[in-house]
Amino acid sequence: MRCITEDQLEDIAIGAGILGTGGGGDPGLGMLIARTAIRQYGPVQVVELSDVPDDALIVPVVAMGAPTVANEKLPSLEAMTLAVKALASRTGASATHTMAIEIGGIAALLPIAAAAELGIPVIDGDMMGRAFPELQMVLPSLFGIPASPLAMADEWGNTVVLECRDNRHAERLARAVCVEMGSSALMALYSMSGAQARPAVVSQSLLLAERLGAAVRAARAAHTDPVDAIVGQLRGHRLFLGKVTDLVRRTEGGFARLEARLDGVAADEGAMLRISSQNEHLVAVRDERVVATTPDLIIVVDSQTGEPITTEALRYGARVTVIGAPCDPRYRSTAGLAVVGPRAFGYAIDFQPVELLALGLAGDAPGQGPR
Amino acid sequence: MRCITEDQLEDIAIGAGILGTGGGGDPGLGMLIARTAIRQYGPVQVVELSDVPDDALIVPVVAMGAPTVANEKLPSLEAMTLAVKALASRTGASATHTMAIEIGGIAALLPIAAAAELGIPVIDGDMMGRAFPELQMVLPSLFGIPASPLAMADEWGNTVVLECRDNRHAERLARAVCVEMGSSALMALYSMSGAQARPAVVSQSLLLAERLGAAVRAARAAHTDPVDAIVGQLRGHRLFLGKVTDLVRRTEGGFARLEARLDGVAADEGAMLRISSQNEHLVAVRDERVVATTPDLIIVVDSQTGEPITTEALRYGARVTVIGAPCDPRYRSTAGLAVVGPRAFGYAIDFQPVELLALGLAGDAPGQGPR
Repeated sequence: MRCITEDQLEDIAIGAGILGTGGGGDPGLGMLIARTAIRQYGPVQVVELSDVPDDALIVPVVAMGAPTVANEKLPSLEAMTLAVKALASRTGASATHTMAIEIGGIAALLPIAAAAELGIPVIDGDMMGRAFPELQMVLPSLFGIPASPLAMADEWGNTVVLECRDNRHAERLARAVCVEMGSSALMALYSMSGAQARPAVVSQSLLLAERLGAAVRAARAAHTDPVDAIVGQLRGHRLFLGKVTDLVRRTEGGFARLEARLDGVAADEGAMLRISSQNEHLVAVRDERVVATTPDLIIVVDSQTGEPITTEALRYGARVTVIGAPCDPRYRSTAGLAVVGPRAFGYAIDFQPVELLALGLAGDAPGQGPR
Repeated sequence: MRCITEDQLEDIAIGAGILGTGGGGDPGLGMLIARTAIRQYGPVQVVELSDVPDDALIVPVVAMGAPTVANEKLPSLEAMTLAVKALASRTGASATHTMAIEIGGIAALLPIAAAAELGIPVIDGDMMGRAFPELQMVLPSLFGIPASPLAMADEWGNTVVLECRDNRHAERLARAVCVEMGSSALMALYSMSGAQARPAVVSQSLLLAERLGAAVRAARAAHTDPVDAIVGQLRGHRLFLGKVTDLVRRTEGGFARLEARLDGVAADEGAMLRISSQNEHLVAVRDERVVATTPDLIIVVDSQTGEPITTEALRYGARVTVIGAPCDPRYRSTAGLAVVGPRAFGYAIDFQPVELLALGLAGDAPGQGPR
């Protein structure tokens, strides 16, 4: 039986930060909550997606809200349990397993805490393989799995149960409730059976996060390059080495929007990279050429330490390495790109796989300009 | 057995408009919905509060949202039924009766439609005896009756069930959901037993609305003064006869705010009345003297026809009569005034009963100035 103990939380948190691609909130806060829960209730059993019984009832949990609020007020484990119970009371069935919605950011660790408190296993998997800002942007949406019935709870003990016509309605209604819950709501949603989960969920993402974290820590200890460790684990590509020379931020429609300009250093001297972010880093353009777009992962890390840098934390003058890595292949389907492709976020760009862009093999796409 | 048929709806609608004190939405729209339902399902049985069994389950229904939206898109009877069913599915108990939250405006008539469709009786009563803009402003709040579990539904078939710590939380969360439901949500809330309802609800308010409407129509037919008919039914007072000479409107925090100035005509020649409204008319000041405040009823009607004029519909140059009438005595308690007194709406004025103000018997109150 595989378990998660306190010892693994730090590695998972580092990996979750990298997989957050700039968003997803601070996994360090999730680590604190998971550590407290494991100390109180003991280690958490981890179950492979392939081993989950067909008739298991997987109830994923997540915190919704502004990352800036989470920094000041930890998501409440009590409210998370309340949300799970409100959902069970609606459906008449109790969760046999829990799971992460997204492996990027704080959301990777909250299900571990919930599993400890509820005394159920956590699935080694998640619904994105990264982070995205909205509820309907998960892979199970592509498989017709509904977000609702969806339960929300807040620190005052209020609960709200939504049943929505589709996952976009669920996102909009839940977001409105979240704001009134002080921009800090705990949720139980996307209940699914083991049989439903297998084709629709990313497998072994907790393991990937943990390996990423372990590789970064090992590289730091051995004074080797932590960026190599990340690129290796993610089958990724170094897109740029530079320093931040311009930042334009605005908060709009609940998104932390950022346009960053990086000027190249060392091998990239003389080149320029622009990154466009909406919570997550979504588009990277080198000089006039698109080098990576959502849903592929665009990861910005400190060039020295490999520490991931969030959209909020990116600072003028920072020396960073930008890594591109392929997303889960299901997101590259027509249905997937309709939900999380560049056009879904308002960019007039067609998706091209980062590995082809990196090798110069991608077809010309609008906005890509001459090469 | 007392029933409501199509024939009574017009009188009830006129009366509901008068009792709306400027707010509550257009009862004419409620009349259309109730008429359609009665034509389809037959007359609706009306039950006196005194005859409701102690263990009856009364489930009131109401539409929440902007009156301007209701004008363009009728509240959906289907969504109202869906809300009632979502609540029943949450609580495991089906409504035996329904009731109005407020007798002012459109809300007076929707429960009649719901009763027809659900095949249950409607209580001859409501929870305000007038209209107020927020959910917690009902008399049952003073008796500790919770608004939640509270179910909401929209025209797309989305449902939301709230369970809230208190009625103010319920108001805030429901309001946020309502906005995302296109500012047009149907709700089932404040479930209560017959025994709970008796001390906490205003009795015979459907009858009052119907009598008001009948009296106004009779006066019009007989060419007598419809304002006399209203004043008589409500044990009210003519506060002012004037014409509108200034209007300042703004929409703020979901309220239609209005400051109106009336210059006196006939017996009130030379005097001036200011009316301050937030959806409902809340304060009337004649020259420098307060003559009526919330929770007492301030009713503005066309001087010729007795037709009530809403806050949105008040127009420059209109010749109107302003009537003051006592509210339900329970609102005049300390607990009641804390929820719906002038200070609850941001006015630095203490409540004085309209009948004492009218007779010059009220004590001096801040803001009242010299007499």
